[in-house]
Amino acid sequence: MNILIAMDSLKGSLSSIEANNAIAEGLLNANNKFSVQAVPVADGGEGTVEALVHATDGHFIEKIVTGPVGVPVQARYGILGGKNTAVIEVAEACGLPLLTKEQLNPLITTTYGVGELIMDAIDRGCRDFIIGLGGSATNDAGVGMLQALGYQFFVQNGDSVGLGGEFLKVIVKVDSSKVPSKVKEARFRVACDVNNPLYGPNGAAYIYGPQKGGTPEMIKELDEGLKRFADVCLEQMGVDLQHITGAGAAGGLGAAFAGFLGGQLESGVSLILAENKLEKKLAGVDLVITGEGKLDGQTSMGKAPAGVAKMAQSLGIPVIALAGDVSEGNPQLYDSGITAYFTIVGGPVSLEKAMKPEVARENLKRIAEQIGRVWGMARIIK
Amino acid sequence: MNILIAMDSLKGSLSSIEANNAIAEGLLNANNKFSVQAVPVADGGEGTVEALVHATDGHFIEKIVTGPVGVPVQARYGILGGKNTAVIEVAEACGLPLLTKEQLNPLITTTYGVGELIMDAIDRGCRDFIIGLGGSATNDAGVGMLQALGYQFFVQNGDSVGLGGEFLKVIVKVDSSKVPSKVKEARFRVACDVNNPLYGPNGAAYIYGPQKGGTPEMIKELDEGLKRFADVCLEQMGVDLQHITGAGAAGGLGAAFAGFLGGQLESGVSLILAENKLEKKLAGVDLVITGEGKLDGQTSMGKAPAGVAKMAQSLGIPVIALAGDVSEGNPQLYDSGITAYFTIVGGPVSLEKAMKPEVARENLKRIAEQIGRVWGMARIIK
Repeated sequence: MNILIAMDSLKGSLSSIEANNAIAEGLLNANNKFSVQAVPVADGGEGTVEALVHATDGHFIEKIVTGPVGVPVQARYGILGGKNTAVIEVAEACGLPLLTKEQLNPLITTTYGVGELIMDAIDRGCRDFIIGLGGSATNDAGVGMLQALGYQFFVQNGDSVGLGGEFLKVIVKVDSSKVPSKVKEARFRVACDVNNPLYGPNGAAYIYGPQKGGTPEMIKELDEGLKRFADVCLEQMGVDLQHITGAGAAGGLGAAFAGFLGGQLESGVSLILAENKLEKKLAGVDLVITGEGKLDGQTSMGKAPAGVAKMAQSLGIPVIALAGDVSEGNPQLYDSGITAYFTIVGGPVSLEKAMKPEVARENLKRIAEQIGRVWGMARIIK
Repeated sequence: MNILIAMDSLKGSLSSIEANNAIAEGLLNANNKFSVQAVPVADGGEGTVEALVHATDGHFIEKIVTGPVGVPVQARYGILGGKNTAVIEVAEACGLPLLTKEQLNPLITTTYGVGELIMDAIDRGCRDFIIGLGGSATNDAGVGMLQALGYQFFVQNGDSVGLGGEFLKVIVKVDSSKVPSKVKEARFRVACDVNNPLYGPNGAAYIYGPQKGGTPEMIKELDEGLKRFADVCLEQMGVDLQHITGAGAAGGLGAAFAGFLGGQLESGVSLILAENKLEKKLAGVDLVITGEGKLDGQTSMGKAPAGVAKMAQSLGIPVIALAGDVSEGNPQLYDSGITAYFTIVGGPVSLEKAMKPEVARENLKRIAEQIGRVWGMARIIK
């Protein structure tokens, strides 16, 4: 009996690895003859670095970089086991959790620190990058990041442009002549599960600006800035940023990766599952256990458990999904390859208590033990 | 695939039958080729009448009888399918739920209505009785019930004794000469899962008096009354009430049934499972689903799911237990034959919401569907 465990993190409670470990313990409590392997997974959002570093036996790098409002922050990224690939969550350098509510201001926040992280990895020899775009506090079209990588953006009087989304509208010239060749050699795969264009009613500013602290006036200004910047890029570089699907992700970082750095915007889950070689690891597996914090209609669209389940389903392997909350579970989940799903809680409990790491850990152990026991008994009945 | 469902009631939420029906629906959602039978069960407490009436295709009788403080109450009992057996929960005629907190007073509460229910069933031709003792508000040693059945109890001046525990201490004479022969023909099986003696520190008054509204002074008085009554019975009838195990159940009703009416005090679960012929119904069953409101250490001792599980275990049938709350589940449950246990809730939720009948019903359907799906998939793996 071979069981593969591939939990996404339970956000705010347990990491993917911690969740996997608790489940493994519960399954082995049920039957210590089970062969259990654990694969950390993520969906390109929070937890991506940790999952891939652990899945590939890589390591972490900590670096102090320019934070979203200029104040230095300590950011962490990963270098995968093969040594040539770096994995970066942009939120580490420019994310919402780095700011208080009062500090949020998409006119001034910058992605400069993301570029510094990339440059650090390039200097360590990395040329392949996996980028998670989730959770940025910025709306600068990635101009800050590009500046850190050697791109130059000038305003009318010839000065370099300042940091922050408010300056997009005054950029008149783009110059890539000072970009080091080692940057040009780098290949970027970008986890991006939104398809917003750069500007307009469905663009970065209007859709994601409000959660980044943008007032209606700011958002109008930012949207105009994104459009002006796109016009300049089209005219001077021949790159049509507006028509890149997902250009509006992370305040326009999608546009910067795809339009300037030749990056591929891909489904986060597919990217991560390819990188951690899940398909290969599924060979000979009898049962997959996956899950996340909450299972609902969203789960069947681009989230890690559905990605894991679809891959398992294509190989004919049954999948059990576990989540803190399955009360909005529905038949769509079956379509995405999830055979059955269970909550991890033991009974009526507050969300706050259920999310305590020690409680979530015990809950995962218990439900895994019970599933292991059901599995064992079901298979002995003729 | 034959599945037998035998849920106890979820107290305050769903009856045994309602819980069984919801589970059946969920299982058939998972696979409409499952063969599903439902057997209502109970542990001798609340729900016993309903479970046995439904299990045997019997019927209910409603009768107005003397309530615990003399005010008439409408009480329900059951006549089982075979027509000769009546099933009575004493709480219907003398139970705590019939009184406000202010009305509780074990000096005056009486079991007279229990006797009236028994007499009603005798008049309808019943000679076999199953009695559930739980939840009485009385401490009258069953004297009220015995009076309704024709027993006479006299005080010093020759008057008949009044109703209520306070009069036990003044009884000086017991006379059974007026008891009708039809009462003497009746056989009583009494669901009793406590082993308290009639009086003394572990007796009816000291152990159960406080929850019936007894003050320390009342309890002392009641305990002395129980002892005096036992002395009179021993002297005049040669019956040693004090040495009957469980005599102290239900304020001494245990003593009245065993000492006066020749009743057998038995484990409630065993009695009910024998009566609903569970063992016979388990023939050819592949999986049993049982459960109750909360699974914990108590479950393994004398509660319905453990009784069901032990019987299934003896026949080699795996058992899944479901409960609103399994967070205190423990390995003892496995010893009682429960193979695996699951909560019915879908995630963090308040107890109040989880106990709403419509919520509990949906929850049972969902978990049953998931178990059905796991079962199906586990059995197709080689």
